[in-house]
Amino acid sequence: MLKNFKILLQYEGTKYQGWQRQDSTGNTIQGKLESILCKMTGSETVSVNGSGRTDAGVHALGQTANFKIETDKSKDQVMHYINQYLPEDIGVISIEEMPDRFHSRLNAKGKIYQYRIWNSDLPCVFERRYVYELPDKLDIDAMRAAAGHLVGKHDFKAFTSSKKSKKSTIRTINSIVVECQGKEVVLTYEGDGFLYHMVRIITGTLIEVGRGTRTPKSVVKLLDKDASREMAGALVPAKGLCLMEVRY
Amino acid sequence: MLKNFKILLQYEGTKYQGWQRQDSTGNTIQGKLESILCKMTGSETVSVNGSGRTDAGVHALGQTANFKIETDKSKDQVMHYINQYLPEDIGVISIEEMPDRFHSRLNAKGKIYQYRIWNSDLPCVFERRYVYELPDKLDIDAMRAAAGHLVGKHDFKAFTSSKKSKKSTIRTINSIVVECQGKEVVLTYEGDGFLYHMVRIITGTLIEVGRGTRTPKSVVKLLDKDASREMAGALVPAKGLCLMEVRY
Repeated sequence: MLKNFKILLQYEGTKYQGWQRQDSTGNTIQGKLESILCKMTGSETVSVNGSGRTDAGVHALGQTANFKIETDKSKDQVMHYINQYLPEDIGVISIEEMPDRFHSRLNAKGKIYQYRIWNSDLPCVFERRYVYELPDKLDIDAMRAAAGHLVGKHDFKAFTSSKKSKKSTIRTINSIVVECQGKEVVLTYEGDGFLYHMVRIITGTLIEVGRGTRTPKSVVKLLDKDASREMAGALVPAKGLCLMEVRY
Repeated sequence: MLKNFKILLQYEGTKYQGWQRQDSTGNTIQGKLESILCKMTGSETVSVNGSGRTDAGVHALGQTANFKIETDKSKDQVMHYINQYLPEDIGVISIEEMPDRFHSRLNAKGKIYQYRIWNSDLPCVFERRYVYELPDKLDIDAMRAAAGHLVGKHDFKAFTSSKKSKKSTIRTINSIVVECQGKEVVLTYEGDGFLYHMVRIITGTLIEVGRGTRTPKSVVKLLDKDASREMAGALVPAKGLCLMEVRY
């Protein structure tokens, strides 16, 4: 019987070349899942659709994916089978059987990403794989003001590393929350979707505002139709980024 | 000028053979600190006194240690120097200059340890290095009742792997708190000191109570003068254990 399963996934991205399957030498999350499902079903290929790709080194607390397989197994049996063969830095934490038309990327309505900055010169022993260490003094209010200018529906082409000029670079950011949590500065982004490297370039730009090398107001011109990648801030490291939730 | 420094340390114990220095092949936390301080001071030996040894694989959020060195450096310079050479899974998070007579083990008045059980059959991706995965259903009230019998001043000789029969095995446990935190069962121990493997053997015994293979009342006889190691529960894995705080 053909079943369409939606899974909720967590992974520590440290050791992986990102979500997307590559050739046989690539160590990817999609690749791990597909080879386990091929073994389980005896099929030559199984396609696992992620809600989107995450880059090498990026983590996920709430990635979603779906796949269609012929199986008599119950959803819990499928989850148990996958978890049994996954390495300990990837885990399926829930599973649902969905109508045939459900697609985890096409049906996604929004995403939440979090970027964690360890804003101290003390070592961060336990969370070091999940934060970007940046001891510089940051002006949080300035970062919040700049973030406010980026919220809304805009052309974010200055905030992507993608060279594909044909696809739309218009996206809507519903909110950017900048919070101090102990020694961390945590940036939480919610939007309908994010371009390649977009969260990491916005974060890099907001950090420059926080350091005082850009004014909050100056980010407005990065949304202009003649803005370009070079005008925006630096790309911050992948390890501070985590895909928190995909909304449907 | 001879100075006596007290440091507050964090470490992820996963890769280490515990706190205590061994021969030159041993990978230990004390060994790392002492070799950095020898380099800094140009001395052949520097002794770093820990508040106590932690075993291989055990973590620390608040280990303390002291060492006496001849130096003109300020405390902040010393901390910065050490952190610069420590691997990223060990960090000094604060430093104080103390009177000459201060000794981090001899002056310690009490310690707090925490043992974390991941009580779910779902994978624990992000915290997997810091928890013991045990999906069995646990009767938390029974564990609390048993823990209550162990609180107080008792002879804990049945709860240690140490073969040294000359040293006193009498200790005082001020409190054992058993809490459910999401999918975790967290046991917090506060006492004047703990014998070799004592927290891990008490935890193993409480887990057996939680599973129903021992009654809460049965732990009382483990404190008798003719109790022995074989009567107590299994030693649980090191990775769930963390030294949280040393009290002075």
